[in-house]
Amino acid sequence: MWEVRIYYKKGVQDPEGDTTLQGLKMLGFDCAEEVKTAKIFWIRGCDREEVEKICRRFLANTTSQDYEILQL
Amino acid sequence: MWEVRIYYKKGVQDPEGDTTLQGLKMLGFDCAEEVKTAKIFWIRGCDREEVEKICRRFLANTTSQDYEILQL
Repeated sequence: MWEVRIYYKKGVQDPEGDTTLQGLKMLGFDCAEEVKTAKIFWIRGCDREEVEKICRRFLANTTSQDYEILQL
Repeated sequence: MWEVRIYYKKGVQDPEGDTTLQGLKMLGFDCAEEVKTAKIFWIRGCDREEVEKICRRFLANTTSQDYEILQL
C-alpha cells in the first residue's frame, strides 16, 4: 500500500486553503491564522516506479504541486 | 500547527478514489487494485478544542467521514 501526498509548492497559491481560512473567519474562528491543504491517495498495488509515473502523469500538476510517496 | 485528515468512513463510497482508479486503468496502470483518498488541512493557530469544533462543523461531513487531528 502506498500513500501519495499531493500539495502545493512553496510560494504557490493554495485556493482551497485560502477559501477554508475565509470560511473559518466567517464562522467566528478568529484563532485560525493560516490554512494549507493537501490530498492523499492510498494506492493498493503497483511498485514504486509505477506510483512515481502515476504521480507525474496523473495525480500531480508538477508545475504547481509537489508529491511525496510513502510505503505503508 | 495542526494536521487534520478527513477521510471516508469504512464501507462508505469514496467517489474520487473510484474515479481515480478508473482513470489509472484507462491510462494502462493495471497494477492499481484500489484507490482511496483523504484530505489534509494544515491549520496554524487555534487550540485542540477549537480544531475539534472546526472539524465537526466545517471540514468533515460526520455522516460519511471521519477525522484525525495531529499536532505537528
